Amino acid sequence: MTASTERLYLFDTTLRDGAQTTGVDFTLEDKVKIAGILDDLGIDYVEGGYPGANATDTALFGEDRRLKATFTAFGMTKRAGRSAANDPGVAALLDAKAKAICFVAKAWDYHVHVALGCTLEENLEGIRDSVAAAKARGFEVLVDCEHFFDGYKANPDYALSCARNAYEAGARWVVLCDTNGGTLPEEIEAIVRTVSSTVPGDHLGIHAHNDTEQAVAVSLAAVRAGARQIQGTLNGLGERCGNANLTSLIPTLLLKSAYADRFAIGVTKEKLGQLTKASRKLDELLNRSPNRHAPYVGASAFATKAGIHASAVLKEPETYEHVPPETVGNRRHVLVSEQAGKSNIIYELERVGLTIAKDDPRVARILDEVKDRESLGYAYEGADASFFLLAKRVMGEVPAFFEVERFKVNVERRYNAVGDLVTFSEATVKVKVGSEVMISAAEGNGPVNALDAALRKDLGQYQRYIEDLELVDFRVRILNGGTGAVTRVLIESKDATGDTWTTVGVSANIIDASFQALTDSITYKLVKEGVGV
Amino acid sequence: MTASTERLYLFDTTLRDGAQTTGVDFTLEDKVKIAGILDDLGIDYVEGGYPGANATDTALFGEDRRLKATFTAFGMTKRAGRSAANDPGVAALLDAKAKAICFVAKAWDYHVHVALGCTLEENLEGIRDSVAAAKARGFEVLVDCEHFFDGYKANPDYALSCARNAYEAGARWVVLCDTNGGTLPEEIEAIVRTVSSTVPGDHLGIHAHNDTEQAVAVSLAAVRAGARQIQGTLNGLGERCGNANLTSLIPTLLLKSAYADRFAIGVTKEKLGQLTKASRKLDELLNRSPNRHAPYVGASAFATKAGIHASAVLKEPETYEHVPPETVGNRRHVLVSEQAGKSNIIYELERVGLTIAKDDPRVARILDEVKDRESLGYAYEGADASFFLLAKRVMGEVPAFFEVERFKVNVERRYNAVGDLVTFSEATVKVKVGSEVMISAAEGNGPVNALDAALRKDLGQYQRYIEDLELVDFRVRILNGGTGAVTRVLIESKDATGDTWTTVGVSANIIDASFQALTDSITYKLVKEGVGV
Repeated sequence: MTASTERLYLFDTTLRDGAQTTGVDFTLEDKVKIAGILDDLGIDYVEGGYPGANATDTALFGEDRRLKATFTAFGMTKRAGRSAANDPGVAALLDAKAKAICFVAKAWDYHVHVALGCTLEENLEGIRDSVAAAKARGFEVLVDCEHFFDGYKANPDYALSCARNAYEAGARWVVLCDTNGGTLPEEIEAIVRTVSSTVPGDHLGIHAHNDTEQAVAVSLAAVRAGARQIQGTLNGLGERCGNANLTSLIPTLLLKSAYADRFAIGVTKEKLGQLTKASRKLDELLNRSPNRHAPYVGASAFATKAGIHASAVLKEPETYEHVPPETVGNRRHVLVSEQAGKSNIIYELERVGLTIAKDDPRVARILDEVKDRESLGYAYEGADASFFLLAKRVMGEVPAFFEVERFKVNVERRYNAVGDLVTFSEATVKVKVGSEVMISAAEGNGPVNALDAALRKDLGQYQRYIEDLELVDFRVRILNGGTGAVTRVLIESKDATGDTWTTVGVSANIIDASFQALTDSITYKLVKEGVGV
Repeated sequence: MTASTERLYLFDTTLRDGAQTTGVDFTLEDKVKIAGILDDLGIDYVEGGYPGANATDTALFGEDRRLKATFTAFGMTKRAGRSAANDPGVAALLDAKAKAICFVAKAWDYHVHVALGCTLEENLEGIRDSVAAAKARGFEVLVDCEHFFDGYKANPDYALSCARNAYEAGARWVVLCDTNGGTLPEEIEAIVRTVSSTVPGDHLGIHAHNDTEQAVAVSLAAVRAGARQIQGTLNGLGERCGNANLTSLIPTLLLKSAYADRFAIGVTKEKLGQLTKASRKLDELLNRSPNRHAPYVGASAFATKAGIHASAVLKEPETYEHVPPETVGNRRHVLVSEQAGKSNIIYELERVGLTIAKDDPRVARILDEVKDRESLGYAYEGADASFFLLAKRVMGEVPAFFEVERFKVNVERRYNAVGDLVTFSEATVKVKVGSEVMISAAEGNGPVNALDAALRKDLGQYQRYIEDLELVDFRVRILNGGTGAVTRVLIESKDATGDTWTTVGVSANIIDASFQALTDSITYKLVKEGVGV
């Protein structure tokens, strides 16, 4: 931050407003992991949820989550007819282990009457008292003025008095929300400019939704008009069409001189290089397919299809790309080019710790193998351990530790002795280790679990190296759909050192795909342990 | 169009720039069908492709496609060192059965030197001669000024002279292209305003890309600055992050007063009611999953999940929706979720065709059942058919058509007779239909496929009702992860009428979860067919 730049604050609501996304259902573990990703990126505020509204959010705020970011609890202002101290909703908020509280308050007179059923003055009193109560308990306070822009169009004086009351009661931020998402950037710019003569811009935030596909433009228009906090979500998650997409906003703020020269944000240029990975991680946690066409971080964001541009792009990429892909941790894809592929592969190999000379003939063989496998449905972006093994195998550096001669998995559903319908899963594995042949059997709570248990039951001379191996996640994606469906399984493993690694398997058969990922995980662990044959 | 409105023209390039989308590969039949969809909507210009560049496009322009829209062929201006008459590329364009020709011309001095390797004046001559040649053959002429905004920033005089030469040679439209997609709306607005003193606004078009997620905002900024043609694509198809999305722009232009009061477009309000269908048709042709979160037309664009809003939305939808969903042919969706209240449930029941009085005690029982099951991991948001069955079961209206007494699934990997490692999947199902007991067995390419085949092999008296049932999608999500993992399976089915429905199953065992979703699908089909016991 230089003398000539102003600080602009990013407020992430992936875990609160993003939880409203159709099909998204965060567990407590998801929330903790995602808060960590956001914190690591350098987001200023992480809004975790609504303590008191559901068990997950109450548990989330029941412990100190120790973030660098300002961890924020969301909730409603007190109801009319009781004091903040006697409002159970506010009480739950005040007990939250958080640094800030974000109150949502109605700013549209119509909604005060219809949805709250109280007077306009009672609503203002609710704002003032709630802010004061939270400030008295030492919280930083934000007030989300719900429906602010629609409210402002209907009754500008009342919308403004909500903002003013929040500010005067001591709110650090008064956030102007376009709750229904239909306000246009030029309207937002004009209204925020007017509001900033009542509440100073460095206390104003913008909360936009993407219902006209302009949430990013709306957020930037508000900043041009004086607002200094942007609320949004990773990957633009959010109710309906989503919230303002921080994954698009962050690179624009850091890389486009119109903003980069005027503003400083909490995300550094180094952390920007992690953005693509952060975006993919969130999708992986939610088991959503990443949007190929996402600005900056999508797999196609820097892809040029064979055509009038392709060869020129290779010669002078900077005149065909609005920003360099590596600044956001993404890659150029020029689909006709072997050359681009080779340097990509070398880059990827170095990332997983394998150094190889550019003119080594094995680079081309690794590239061919990756291409072949990717055309079958393998994806190595999220499966570093399998990529590492693929390269090491081409280089002839992975011993055949063990060979599974056959396996058999059985799932049976039937009535048990006491008449309950139960399902049993059982697996048998015949594995050859050196000259030793072992048959192991195990039960599990599902076919993959049984197969895993049987496979790791006895690996002879290698058994001691895998005792601390543990499966921590198992993800399945069906590719193509319908009759030509292929299953891709990703398995995340860890060991006692705390290292985690991910392996991939692909097959029309989910058990087969799981088996591949499981054996890759064991093999990786043995290579990691430096085991020879 | 009233006296006070100006005409704004829409130019669709789905079939040309949209063909650069990663993974999109139009056949001739696709192109003809899509041109029909666009024409029917009331788009002014339909750009079909690049005749002479590939066989599909040459064939497309080999016949008169008889559109109301101005069917447009795309191609490059003539090369330096030859006349337009002697340029084979231009000749192919002049032979196209089209009403207009859109020439692409470099407008960035750097690219003229590097990519064309000719002088700046030769490039201007190429523009003039190509426009003149096409005009002389009776075509309406457009010139896409490639890299216009980057070119303007580098050398404003030269970029402007490209635009001026095109206009003075007789081009109906001079289209300013942000080819790399990185220019910000406020920059576009300022530059277009300046250009409009050289080329009148009613001869200026804008061609934007979505690389900063602002292509829609860029297009509207150009219109505010005077441009009167917008180029874009249906569903925002296009290279990298896509082109300006006409599916978002059209409703904004027709429904938002800032534009609707000032401009008239070729799409009527009646045709706007077909927009959602047109968007889905394109996805279907391309076999892409529709984007649930797409503005205006996405399945979630008018979906409410929030507990605090849901009941209010139903009472006063117009104060929670920025436009009425039916204006774009979409519908409201109030999600059944953990936070759902009674009014949610009643609304959702009505949507799936079940009418029930608000004070009927069964409403509370259905709500409890939904909540219980959601706490186990079931999700009914995406599984209407299972939700329908759950409600009907509580209401005592689902017969016990069949009972699966036991099933057994076997997956075995072993060496076959010729020494290849192969995996077999086989399932056996014992099912009781009335007093009949049947055992069926089947193989499949995986355990779920085998189980499905065995289950549907013989359902006795019901078999004839399920002959046309077909599984079209199978999705798996692992909840919680790790050792306490629970698997949620969603299965989408369809039948010969074209109806599709989705069912859900949840279990620690993936086979069990799949089995639940499979049996729900069959049961739904039987209820749908009106089968009694």
